[in-house]
Amino acid sequence: MQSLLAQWEALCAGSPGLRFVDIALRGFGQVMFQDHALTGLLFLAAIAWGSVVAGVPHVLFAGVLGVVAATLTAIWLGADRTALGAGLYGYNGVLVGLALATFLAPGAALWVYVALGAAVSTVATLGAASALKPIKTPALTAPFVAVTWIMLLATYGFAGLSGVALPAGGVVAPFEPAAPVSLDLGDYLTGTFLSISQVFLKASVVSAILFLAGLAVSSVPAALFALGGSMLAVAVAHAFGAESDLVTQGLLGFSPVLTAVALGVTFRRPGLRTTLYAALGVVFTVVAQAALNVALRPFALPALTAPFVLVSWMFLAPGEEPANRSKSE
Amino acid sequence: MQSLLAQWEALCAGSPGLRFVDIALRGFGQVMFQDHALTGLLFLAAIAWGSVVAGVPHVLFAGVLGVVAATLTAIWLGADRTALGAGLYGYNGVLVGLALATFLAPGAALWVYVALGAAVSTVATLGAASALKPIKTPALTAPFVAVTWIMLLATYGFAGLSGVALPAGGVVAPFEPAAPVSLDLGDYLTGTFLSISQVFLKASVVSAILFLAGLAVSSVPAALFALGGSMLAVAVAHAFGAESDLVTQGLLGFSPVLTAVALGVTFRRPGLRTTLYAALGVVFTVVAQAALNVALRPFALPALTAPFVLVSWMFLAPGEEPANRSKSE
Amino acid sequence: MQSLLAQWEALCAGSPGLRFVDIALRGFGQVMFQDHALTGLLFLAAIAWGSVVAGVPHVLFAGVLGVVAATLTAIWLGADRTALGAGLYGYNGVLVGLALATFLAPGAALWVYVALGAAVSTVATLGAASALKPIKTPALTAPFVAVTWIMLLATYGFAGLSGVALPAGGVVAPFEPAAPVSLDLGDYLTGTFLSISQVFLKASVVSAILFLAGLAVSSVPAALFALGGSMLAVAVAHAFGAESDLVTQGLLGFSPVLTAVALGVTFRRPGLRTTLYAALGVVFTVVAQAALNVALRPFALPALTAPFVLVSWMFLAPGEEPANRSKSE
Repeated sequence: MQSLLAQWEALCAGSPGLRFVDIALRGFGQVMFQDHALTGLLFLAAIAWGSVVAGVPHVLFAGVLGVVAATLTAIWLGADRTALGAGLYGYNGVLVGLALATFLAPGAALWVYVALGAAVSTVATLGAASALKPIKTPALTAPFVAVTWIMLLATYGFAGLSGVALPAGGVVAPFEPAAPVSLDLGDYLTGTFLSISQVFLKASVVSAILFLAGLAVSSVPAALFALGGSMLAVAVAHAFGAESDLVTQGLLGFSPVLTAVALGVTFRRPGLRTTLYAALGVVFTVVAQAALNVALRPFALPALTAPFVLVSWMFLAPGEEPANRSKSE
Repeated sequence: MQSLLAQWEALCAGSPGLRFVDIALRGFGQVMFQDHALTGLLFLAAIAWGSVVAGVPHVLFAGVLGVVAATLTAIWLGADRTALGAGLYGYNGVLVGLALATFLAPGAALWVYVALGAAVSTVATLGAASALKPIKTPALTAPFVAVTWIMLLATYGFAGLSGVALPAGGVVAPFEPAAPVSLDLGDYLTGTFLSISQVFLKASVVSAILFLAGLAVSSVPAALFALGGSMLAVAVAHAFGAESDLVTQGLLGFSPVLTAVALGVTFRRPGLRTTLYAALGVVFTVVAQAALNVALRPFALPALTAPFVLVSWMFLAPGEEPANRSKSE
Repeated sequence: MQSLLAQWEALCAGSPGLRFVDIALRGFGQVMFQDHALTGLLFLAAIAWGSVVAGVPHVLFAGVLGVVAATLTAIWLGADRTALGAGLYGYNGVLVGLALATFLAPGAALWVYVALGAAVSTVATLGAASALKPIKTPALTAPFVAVTWIMLLATYGFAGLSGVALPAGGVVAPFEPAAPVSLDLGDYLTGTFLSISQVFLKASVVSAILFLAGLAVSSVPAALFALGGSMLAVAVAHAFGAESDLVTQGLLGFSPVLTAVALGVTFRRPGLRTTLYAALGVVFTVVAQAALNVALRPFALPALTAPFVLVSWMFLAPGEEPANRSKSE
């Protein structure tokens, strides 16, 4: 595989068009923190599969439009070349495209909206990087969440755009649980896999396997933490008595999957202490996901990956030292 | 005019009372970023006109009380002399006064409330300047928005103060547009001018012209960007299918007007690239204004200039370099 | 008393177990900014009294579990030894424990929840300290507020945890005051004392006196500012026409009590100017408390000490210099 990647790199070096494709693929890969074109290709395949089987092929196209618009905006703004080449100005655009096309009705206005949102996500990424530099914390998917929330909210005031899959609004009310449901092994595994595919707003086991394969191509630990984080999250959500449908559809597990990879592999030196710290983060991300689902009810908005962003910021802000200081003690 | 201003400056230099008037006038001017006493005088005239024709002359007085209380607080706190002299501790107080008097019933409690809010707006301005220094981003009207939101919300718990013009509360619900309305040229121009006067919470074409004149006295580019930003905002809001009344009353355009001047003239070197960047910001401010109108519905609060603050922070945080880097490439 | 404290310190120096008890007691003391074991012991007694007379002794236990879990987490994460020894990683855990046990039904799930929340409050404290370092502002009780809000919100989605004392949800609506009530001296004093005990979510005059005694043991000025801040807050809340029950139960005064001590004693050099500045902060905290009570209605959440955190950040962010600059003028 190494020689294949070397060939691809040589081809890209000679062609601005292929280089752009390479950057766009890495943009897909960076949704799960991977700077790897083949990972991006497998992620793209997973999105394609999930979109087609759900009967919404235009969602795939919106993801592609998102990464293209976001990357072109980064080039126009003269963004840092290294970060650009690693796909770091593309992943928020991918997610803006997938989310807007998932929640809004298709049509010409949607494409304008996706291009606008993806372009602004790049501005927001540059702004967040600048604002977070003093505290050495990564922007994660905060630009995606902020831009998408604003754009979805605005559709409640625009006749030209309408929501087809947005949650209904309402005030927060006491939870009235259905009769307790036990989760059998099949449900548990379904919830685990769909939690992984829901990172990209897809509900497909096949897509989940493609996402795991894409991760493994770039980093086996990342794939293991994604899977382990998902298993832990589904178990915790069930133990706290969350609604079974939310659990088995992966809707309480996708943010924890990202937390697991971010805290366990990407932004910290792996090890036992890091793993325990990431596990604590995963458990609290399940709580935060349930909390944000409730808190956003008055706004008729989905939580997206905001729980992952909030908890990962909380857990990354202390910096590397405290978590590893005892090594030298 | 230069000699007139020189005479005024000489008079102020010799009289602490006139210097205070000068600082207060600059406070009015700084609502649209202008450190210019004559601009402030024209803005004051525009507010006076708009208040009197709307039958609410006490709103004018609240604006004056606001700038006085805010400036006196800055002097008491020993704030930076240069910023003080430029009116930078006054503009949030002006807006606190205008907004509280616009949304709440007149009476003795209102005047206490305006003085309290204006004083606290100066503390908030000093705090915001300090907090935003590491990321080199200006406070803009964030102190006004934060203080006014808190004070308006509190009136829902205080019998001594009551809202007379606050929006009604409700959860977010799908938009049910009226039959599509085409915007004729008259409506379009009305919306454009009222968007400018609504920066000061006024709905008057005469006031808008006085505001533009005030801007032009200090900076012709600022006046042109205010007008151009307003025209673009009204067109975009209409194109997205926003409610016609909101569009023609200027209620979706006042934040974009401020974004246009901030991004296009005040905080960036003017030029084609800057103009395009500001235009992108203006378009997204329209979306953010519609979004915040919706998001604040459960709180029965007006959005004020929060959309301008959020979008301008997003667009200013990346710093000057990225937007202008290609010049040296 | 000094020799008693010296003896205690000698005992602690020789016993890790007693040292842990010392740190835990200081954790209680730090809820009101006091690094003092005897203060903590008196605060613990006040909580015990308030919990027992209200028929909820398990709340006391939750506070103890909170400080233990938070402190152990800080030790595990290798947090700064000096801050650890001063109880600075314990007070948020105390409050998380008291709040979760006050608002949620008792049971095994509650104890897991308290331990989880207290552990995460330490992570949040480390993260907040790091994030706020560039602007030299203390974390205050922000970690407690953030973690508790998230955990309370999540219970609306978890069948395993249920709220027994959470406020009902609803949209914001115009205030319909009862007939104006005059506050006699008895009500005024009750409101003043309960405002102090409500800092720890208790409604007991005896507890309030124990809290004041605990403060006085460590700092007489802190006790005086707590009492003075409470008296001012109750008077202001009544003058604005707040609901009598809220006023006399101390529910509009507990955040201002913390603001008074923080701005008047703990984080600023005492003096007349500082006292006036703190008084302005106390008045605005009353407004902010009323505002947050309203703003959180759609989320069916209590405001906790968020008004104190917001206003104190606003008033501390400008730094020491502006408020004291005139001394050298």
